[in-house]
Amino acid sequence: MPKADKFREACGVVAIYAHPEAEKLAYLGLHALQHRGQESAGIVTSDGDALRLHKGMGLVAEIFSEEVLSKLHGNLAIGHTRYSTAGDSALLNAQPIRVQSNKGTIALAHNGNLVNASVIRSHLESQGSIFQTNSDTEVIVHLIARSKEQALLDAMADALRQVEGAFSLVMISPDRIYAARDPRGFRPLALGRIPGGGGPNGDTIVFASETCAFDLIGATFERDVKPGELMVAGPSGITSRFFAPPQPQSSCIFEHVYFSRPDSLVFGRAVEESRAELGRELAREAPAEADMVVPVPDSGVSAAMGYAAESGIPFRFGLIRNHYVGRTFIEPLQSVRDFGVKLKLNPVRSLLEGKRVVLIDDSIVRGTTSRKIVRMVRGAGAREVHMRISCPPTISPCFYGVDTPSMRELIAANKSIEEIREFIGADSLAYLSVEGLKKACGDGQKTTYCSACYTGCYPTDWVDVEEIQPARGRR
Amino acid sequence: MPKADKFREACGVVAIYAHPEAEKLAYLGLHALQHRGQESAGIVTSDGDALRLHKGMGLVAEIFSEEVLSKLHGNLAIGHTRYSTAGDSALLNAQPIRVQSNKGTIALAHNGNLVNASVIRSHLESQGSIFQTNSDTEVIVHLIARSKEQALLDAMADALRQVEGAFSLVMISPDRIYAARDPRGFRPLALGRIPGGGGPNGDTIVFASETCAFDLIGATFERDVKPGELMVAGPSGITSRFFAPPQPQSSCIFEHVYFSRPDSLVFGRAVEESRAELGRELAREAPAEADMVVPVPDSGVSAAMGYAAESGIPFRFGLIRNHYVGRTFIEPLQSVRDFGVKLKLNPVRSLLEGKRVVLIDDSIVRGTTSRKIVRMVRGAGAREVHMRISCPPTISPCFYGVDTPSMRELIAANKSIEEIREFIGADSLAYLSVEGLKKACGDGQKTTYCSACYTGCYPTDWVDVEEIQPARGRR
Amino acid sequence: MPKADKFREACGVVAIYAHPEAEKLAYLGLHALQHRGQESAGIVTSDGDALRLHKGMGLVAEIFSEEVLSKLHGNLAIGHTRYSTAGDSALLNAQPIRVQSNKGTIALAHNGNLVNASVIRSHLESQGSIFQTNSDTEVIVHLIARSKEQALLDAMADALRQVEGAFSLVMISPDRIYAARDPRGFRPLALGRIPGGGGPNGDTIVFASETCAFDLIGATFERDVKPGELMVAGPSGITSRFFAPPQPQSSCIFEHVYFSRPDSLVFGRAVEESRAELGRELAREAPAEADMVVPVPDSGVSAAMGYAAESGIPFRFGLIRNHYVGRTFIEPLQSVRDFGVKLKLNPVRSLLEGKRVVLIDDSIVRGTTSRKIVRMVRGAGAREVHMRISCPPTISPCFYGVDTPSMRELIAANKSIEEIREFIGADSLAYLSVEGLKKACGDGQKTTYCSACYTGCYPTDWVDVEEIQPARGRR
Amino acid sequence: MPKADKFREACGVVAIYAHPEAEKLAYLGLHALQHRGQESAGIVTSDGDALRLHKGMGLVAEIFSEEVLSKLHGNLAIGHTRYSTAGDSALLNAQPIRVQSNKGTIALAHNGNLVNASVIRSHLESQGSIFQTNSDTEVIVHLIARSKEQALLDAMADALRQVEGAFSLVMISPDRIYAARDPRGFRPLALGRIPGGGGPNGDTIVFASETCAFDLIGATFERDVKPGELMVAGPSGITSRFFAPPQPQSSCIFEHVYFSRPDSLVFGRAVEESRAELGRELAREAPAEADMVVPVPDSGVSAAMGYAAESGIPFRFGLIRNHYVGRTFIEPLQSVRDFGVKLKLNPVRSLLEGKRVVLIDDSIVRGTTSRKIVRMVRGAGAREVHMRISCPPTISPCFYGVDTPSMRELIAANKSIEEIREFIGADSLAYLSVEGLKKACGDGQKTTYCSACYTGCYPTDWVDVEEIQPARGRR
Repeated sequence: MPKADKFREACGVVAIYAHPEAEKLAYLGLHALQHRGQESAGIVTSDGDALRLHKGMGLVAEIFSEEVLSKLHGNLAIGHTRYSTAGDSALLNAQPIRVQSNKGTIALAHNGNLVNASVIRSHLESQGSIFQTNSDTEVIVHLIARSKEQALLDAMADALRQVEGAFSLVMISPDRIYAARDPRGFRPLALGRIPGGGGPNGDTIVFASETCAFDLIGATFERDVKPGELMVAGPSGITSRFFAPPQPQSSCIFEHVYFSRPDSLVFGRAVEESRAELGRELAREAPAEADMVVPVPDSGVSAAMGYAAESGIPFRFGLIRNHYVGRTFIEPLQSVRDFGVKLKLNPVRSLLEGKRVVLIDDSIVRGTTSRKIVRMVRGAGAREVHMRISCPPTISPCFYGVDTPSMRELIAANKSIEEIREFIGADSLAYLSVEGLKKACGDGQKTTYCSACYTGCYPTDWVDVEEIQPARGRR
Repeated sequence: MPKADKFREACGVVAIYAHPEAEKLAYLGLHALQHRGQESAGIVTSDGDALRLHKGMGLVAEIFSEEVLSKLHGNLAIGHTRYSTAGDSALLNAQPIRVQSNKGTIALAHNGNLVNASVIRSHLESQGSIFQTNSDTEVIVHLIARSKEQALLDAMADALRQVEGAFSLVMISPDRIYAARDPRGFRPLALGRIPGGGGPNGDTIVFASETCAFDLIGATFERDVKPGELMVAGPSGITSRFFAPPQPQSSCIFEHVYFSRPDSLVFGRAVEESRAELGRELAREAPAEADMVVPVPDSGVSAAMGYAAESGIPFRFGLIRNHYVGRTFIEPLQSVRDFGVKLKLNPVRSLLEGKRVVLIDDSIVRGTTSRKIVRMVRGAGAREVHMRISCPPTISPCFYGVDTPSMRELIAANKSIEEIREFIGADSLAYLSVEGLKKACGDGQKTTYCSACYTGCYPTDWVDVEEIQPARGRR
Repeated sequence: MPKADKFREACGVVAIYAHPEAEKLAYLGLHALQHRGQESAGIVTSDGDALRLHKGMGLVAEIFSEEVLSKLHGNLAIGHTRYSTAGDSALLNAQPIRVQSNKGTIALAHNGNLVNASVIRSHLESQGSIFQTNSDTEVIVHLIARSKEQALLDAMADALRQVEGAFSLVMISPDRIYAARDPRGFRPLALGRIPGGGGPNGDTIVFASETCAFDLIGATFERDVKPGELMVAGPSGITSRFFAPPQPQSSCIFEHVYFSRPDSLVFGRAVEESRAELGRELAREAPAEADMVVPVPDSGVSAAMGYAAESGIPFRFGLIRNHYVGRTFIEPLQSVRDFGVKLKLNPVRSLLEGKRVVLIDDSIVRGTTSRKIVRMVRGAGAREVHMRISCPPTISPCFYGVDTPSMRELIAANKSIEEIREFIGADSLAYLSVEGLKKACGDGQKTTYCSACYTGCYPTDWVDVEEIQPARGRR
Repeated sequence: MPKADKFREACGVVAIYAHPEAEKLAYLGLHALQHRGQESAGIVTSDGDALRLHKGMGLVAEIFSEEVLSKLHGNLAIGHTRYSTAGDSALLNAQPIRVQSNKGTIALAHNGNLVNASVIRSHLESQGSIFQTNSDTEVIVHLIARSKEQALLDAMADALRQVEGAFSLVMISPDRIYAARDPRGFRPLALGRIPGGGGPNGDTIVFASETCAFDLIGATFERDVKPGELMVAGPSGITSRFFAPPQPQSSCIFEHVYFSRPDSLVFGRAVEESRAELGRELAREAPAEADMVVPVPDSGVSAAMGYAAESGIPFRFGLIRNHYVGRTFIEPLQSVRDFGVKLKLNPVRSLLEGKRVVLIDDSIVRGTTSRKIVRMVRGAGAREVHMRISCPPTISPCFYGVDTPSMRELIAANKSIEEIREFIGADSLAYLSVEGLKKACGDGQKTTYCSACYTGCYPTDWVDVEEIQPARGRR
C-alpha cells in the first residue's frame, strides 16, 4: 500500500565485534533489517585505529557498493538503517553519528526516541556545545563528552542515566563495541554469536535489532540485551553492567503486530507465532459468514492464515502484490480509478467473483487505502466484503520511535467503528480488542507491552503532546 | 532464488491504440508485465506523424522517468520488456526495433523466438540487406521492407508467412497499431478495450501479453488474438485477417506453471486456477506424511496452498522471502553456508523445529538451489523434508522464447529422480506427471499445450539442436 | 563565446591499424580532436574477429571510462567525435555506424556532408532497404552492401563513386582499416605511422583528421590521404587506389581560419602559420591608430599576435577567458548586463582603461556576441574600440560539413559593413578580403581552397539551397 | 601540467548580503573563483530564518544544478570552493561549516590556515567539545560557541583573537553576513557593492577572495577588508571594527605570481600588471640569446609577454594547451614518451624547428614536468632551450594556506640551480631574484609581502615544521 498510509518503523541497528570482514557482516545485517527503514543507512567500521564512516540516502544495496565496502574494511562495525524526514538535511541526520571528543573518536547508532532531548539540548547549548544535526541522538554523544567520568564506559552510563525515552543503541570506539537498552525496554536489541568468527575467545559478538539479521550472517541468538543493561565487547570478552535500576517493561507491541519480520524472535518471542495467533484471536472475537479469507498482502498474510485456520474458511490469495513497484514516479492517472493502489495490488477476479470475502489487514491508518482496496475487491466481483483488522483501533501517536500520523489524521481517533466501516465501504468491520492483542502476543510471559498507541496511556513522563509533537527527528 | 537457477520468460509486449496518454498506458502496461523481463525495456509512440523511441537497460521504472515519458507523448504506443543476453550489444538488441523503410517508419516488438531466422537472414544479406542487431526480430522488418506487396498490412502478412516459430508481436506505424500471433499460438497475446478512452468509436484498443496489464490501466479483456491472426487498429476501427491457415495449437504450458502472473487470464484460463490445481493434483499423485506444507516463496505458494487444501496438511510460511534483495552485489561470504540462498530466503525456526515438512517448488533446474534450501530447512530444525515439484522434470531446452539452460546443465536431463533426491538431500522427492500437468492446466479445453521442455517432442520442424543452440538472441 | 554564435566543425575521425592497445590510441586521437565535435563520440575496435562498439553523448573523456575501454580491447580501431543535432535520436545518429551485411561486419566514421544523400536514400528504400538513422552516412553502407562487387574494397569504391559532396572517412572490417577522401578533398585526412607499433612490417598505421592526434600518440605524419584516394591497411601492408578521377581541389579554408588546432598540419600546411599570417595581412589591409591589440580569446589570439607584430602596436591580454565554464546551466541573470559573455570573458580594467583598442576576432556570425564584447570592453574603460576580423564576411551557408546558421541569421548576408559596425557599436570595423585570406593560407601552393561561405560560389552541383537546407544531419 | 606538479591555492570565499537571488550570485562568485579550488564547493543561504546548506565534491557547475540552487533560494549567502585532501572524509571537511550553537545557527567559510589549531583543539576537547571534522576551521566555531561574550559579533572577535595564522573568512547568521581577515593580511578578501541590488540602503554588499568575482556579478570593487578588521553587513548597513591591533603586513606574494586570476585586483594591485612586470624584470635579470620567447601555457603567458617586450625577442605560442583535458583517467601509455605532459601540451613543430627558444614558466616544483616539457620542445626541433622562471626557487613549505609539497620533494630545496638545469635538460636556466620578485609586485607600495616559501623566513611564531607538517587539513 502507499507508504503514507502505513506506520513506519524508525530504524534498525547492528553491531559486530571482531570479525575479519566486519564491514560485510554489518552490511548484511542492515540488509536483513532493511524493512525497518528504507531511506538512509550508514556503517562505521574500525580497524583498531581509525573509525571509517559511509552513509547515504536510499536502500542499503544502493548505498554500499563493493568499492565502498572495500574502503570500510575493518574488524569492528556498527550499522544503522532508518527513515529520514524530508528536507535537505536528510543525509546530515543519517546515522551512525561519528564524532571526535575527549573520550576519543566514537560513533553511535540509535533506534528509538528520547522524550527529553530538547530540554537537555538547550542546556548543553547554553554551555557552548555545538550541534550539527537536528537529531536527538546527538544529545547522547554530547552528554558523553561532557561527562566528568574519565572512562568512556562510565561516561556512557552517566549519559544514559540522563536521557528519558526509548533507546536501543550500539556504539563503536576504535577497539570496542557498546550496546545498551533503555530501562523500560521499548525497542528490541538482541545479542548473538558466531562461533569461531575471530573474536577474543574465538567468537564474534553481534548485536542486532532483530534476530533475522543473525540468521543471514550465520550467528546464533544468545539472549536480548536487558532493559537498563550496558554491554561492552572488547579485547577481554563481553562485560555487562546496569546503568539504571529496572523499570516496568514497556516493549513495543507493534513490533509483533507489524514491524518485525515474521522470522525474527523479538522480546524473546517468535513474531510469526504472534501474527498467526492475532488472526486466530480475531476469528474468535469477530467471526464472519464468508466463502474465503483474503489477506491484504504482504502484511496481512500471517493473520489471515490464522483467521482461516481458526474459522475453517478457506484462505485465498485474492489480491496479488506487484513487487516491482519500487520507486515508480507515475502520477495518478485520472482515467483509472484507485490507480495508486492498483499499482501495488491487483484482485484475482477468477477467485473473487460472486464470493463473500473476509479481508484481513493489520491496520487502518487514514482509511483512504482501505477504502480503495474494498472498492477494488468489489469491482472484481466480490459479493460481500467483511474487513477484519488484526489489532485495535490506533488512537494515539507514538513517542517512542514509531512514525505515526498526527491525531487529526488517524481515522480511529476521530470516527467510530461504524463510521469507519461506512467510510471504507465494507459490509462489516471489526478490530481485535486490546485484550485479544495482548493475549496473542503473550503479554506477561517474557515481557509486558506498551500499547499506548491503542490506549493513550504512556509509560513515561515528559510526553507532552504540545511540546513533543513538532519534533519529528525520530530514528 | 538466485536468478540463474530459474527459467526465464523472454519478454512481454503491450500496445495502445488511441488514447491521449498512450505513452503512460504503455509504461504502466510494461510495469504490470515487468515479471516477464527485467533487463531492458522500450517504448515507441506516435503522435500521428513521427515515431519516438526510448529504450534502456534496467527495470521499467528506472528507464522511464517522468521527463522521458513527457518527451514520448503520443496517442499510439507499443512497449516491450525483456531479458537481454550478456555483452556490450545488450542495448542494441533491446526492443522495440524502429526502422525507416519504403513502407514508412515502423517499430516492432516481439515476444517469442523464430526457428528459421538464421536461414532467412543469410538469404537477405546476400541480397544486400544490412542488419544492425543480432536479434531474429530484425528479420521480420526486413521481410516487410522487401515484400513486393505495396500496402504495409499485406507486406506484414507476407513477412509473417515466411517465418517459423513462436511470435506474439505488436507493431506501430504513425497511425496504426498491428498485432499478430503465430499460427500455433505459442505465446499469449490478449485484446482489451478501454471504453471511452479516445479511439475511433470512442474506445481505446489495447493489446498485451497478459491481462494483468489491462487491470492496471482500466481496460477490460475482450478476447485473445487468435493463432494466425493479424489485427489492425486504425482510424476506421479494428480489422482482422488470418495471414496463415490454422495449425494445431501449441500454447506454452510454462506460462501457467510459472511465467504468467496469477492474476492474469492466459490462453483464456485463470492462471491462479491452474496453479492451485497443480498443487491439488500433486497432492493426489504424490502424497506425503507430514506436519506442514511449506512453499518456496514466491513461486511455490499457489501450488503449496492447493497441496495443503487437498491433503489436509496445514500450510505454513516456513520460509520468509526478503523482497529487498534487488541488485545486491555481495559476493559469497565464505563463513556463511548457503549464503546466496539466505540472502533471499530465511527459515522460521519456531515453525519448522521438529516438524516433517512438505516443501513445494515449481521447478528444479540445476538442483543447486534446491539443495541449499533443503539444507537450510533442515538446519532450522525440520525432522523430514519431502520435496514436491508442481511440474514434471525438465529434460529439453525450449526454442520458442524461454531461456532454458543447456541440456548439460538441466539436472533432470542427466539424473534419475532418485539421483536428484540424493543430490538435493531430501527424504523424498516427487514431480507432477505430464498428464497431471495437462489436466491441471485444462489441456484440450480452451487450448492445447506445448510441453516440449518436459517431453522433448517439438511441435515445429527446424528444431535442430545443433544449429539453433548457439543462437541465443531470444526475446 | 556562447556556442550558438560560432560556426561549428562537424566531426573528427581517427583510425588505427595494428597496435596492441588500438582502443587507447583511438581514444587519445579523439581526445586530441575533441575541438572538432563535443557532443558525441564513438569507437569501434576489432580483435581480428568481432567488431565492438561503444558510443555516447558528451565529451570523449566522459564517454570512455577505463572500464569501457577495457571492454573495447583490440588491435584495430576507428573513432569519431561530432556535433549532434538536437532531439531524442541524437545518440542513434552518433558514429561510427556498425552494420552486418553480405560483405561482413563493418563500421564507418565520416567527416563531411553528402549533397545527394536524400536522392540515393529514396532510391534504396524503394528497393527494400531499411534505414535506422537520419544520417547521410548510412547511405554509404547501404551502397556498399548493395554493390554487385563481391570484394569489400571494390564495393566501397563502387559506393564512393555514387556519392557527391564532402567526405573524409575511415572504415573498419574485422581485419582491415580503410580510409578515403572525396575527389575534391574538402575535408582533411592525414596518414601517419608509429614505428615499431606492432603492424605487419612492424609499424602501426594511423589516420586522423588532424596531425595533432599523431603528436599525442607518438605517430609521425607521413602524408595526406589524397583526394579521390582509397587506402587499405591490412595484413600485407598499405595499399592505395583511386576510386575516382581527380577534380579541382576545394579544401575547406575555414579549417585554417578557425576549426583546426594551431599545432596541426592541415592540407600540408601549418595552421599556426596561416593564422599569424591572417593577422599580418589584416594589419596591412586594415590598419588602425591604437594603443594595444587585444584578441577575443582563445580563437583570435594567433591573428592578434600577427596583427600586433605587423603593426607594431603592443599585444595585450585585455580579455581573460574562464576555462571552467563547461556546462554551467545558469540562466541569464537579469541584473547583470551581457551576462552570458561575462561568464566566459572578463575585461582587465587595469589594462584597458583610457586606451584605444584594436579588438581581433576570427568571425562575426550573428553579431550579438560581438556587440556584447565591444560594450564590455568600453565598460572597462577603453576609449576607442576598433574591431578587426581575420576573415571576410560570411554570406553563404556551407553544405560540406560545417554547421552554419541559415542566411537569415548571418549578419553579413543581410547588412553592410557599416551597418554591422553600428550594430556592434565599434568605432571602426574591417574584415580581411577574400584575396588576403587566400594569400594568407597559401592558396595555390599545396592546395586550392573552397571559400564558398565567403563568396557563394559552390564547387559542386546539387547544392540546391531549397532542397538541402532542412536536412541537418551533418557530421 | 599535471596537477601534482603545481602549487595549489587552497580556497576561495564569497559572501552576499541582501539580494533577491543571493544564491545565484554566490554560485557565480564561486564560478569566477573556481581556479582557487576545484575539488569541492559549498553554499549556505539564509532567507532570514533558516540556513540552508549544499556542498559536494567536484566543480562548482557540477555540484549546483538548477534544482539545487532553487532549493537554496535566499537573500543572504556565503560560498566556498577548495581543494580537499584525499580520503573518504573529503566531503565531511568541505565548507562552509554549519552548526547550531547558543549563539544561534551560523555557517562559516575560511581561506587560509591556522597554525595553532591543534593546541586549541586539544584544549577544547578536554572540556567536552565534540569535533566532527579534521578541519582547523571547526576550531573557530567552537571558540565562538564557548565565548563568554553573549553577542555573536563580540564572540566572533573573541574567537579570532585566539587563533594565529592566515584567515580570510566569511560567516552567515540568519540575518547578517560577517567578514574578517587575520591581522597580518595573508590572504586577500575584497569588499564590493551592487548599486540598487536590494540591501538596506538599496545596495547589495559582497565579499570575495578576488575582484574577478565582482566583475561577473556586476559588483564594483570598493576596498579590501583590512588586516585585523571584522565587518558586519546587516539590516542597518555595514559596520566595521578591529578585533586585533595591526601587525606588519604579510600578503602572500604567490597570489600575484600564480594563484589569482590576471583580471583581479589583489591586495589593491592589478595582478596582470605584476605578471607582465615579472617577465620584464626577468628579462633584465636573466637575458638570453634566442629567436623566440615561448610560454608554458597558460600560467607562463603573461610573464612571457613581459619578457618578450623587454627583450625584443618575438613571442610565439610554440606550445598549445588542450583545454579539454578535464578528468581524463588515461594511465600512462608506455609507448608514448612524456605522455602525461603531451595530453595537455603539444609543441608546434613549424614554429620551433631549428630555433633557439626561451621557455618561460612560473615555477619548477619537482622538476619532472619541466624536464618533460624541455624534452618535448627539443623533440619538436628546437636548437636551444633556455628556461626562465618568473619567481625565485621555492625552498620552504607554506603554512598559510597553500598546498606545497614537502621539502623532500621541492627540487630547489635539494639541488643547486646548475643541478636543476642539468636535471631538466635545459641549455641554461635562471630564476627571478627575491628582490626582483618584490619589485615586480610593488612590495612596500600598497602592502608588504610574505615570501617565506622563497626565503624560509616565516612571519608568525608557531611554525614548527615538525609539528605542523603532518596536519594537512588546509583550506
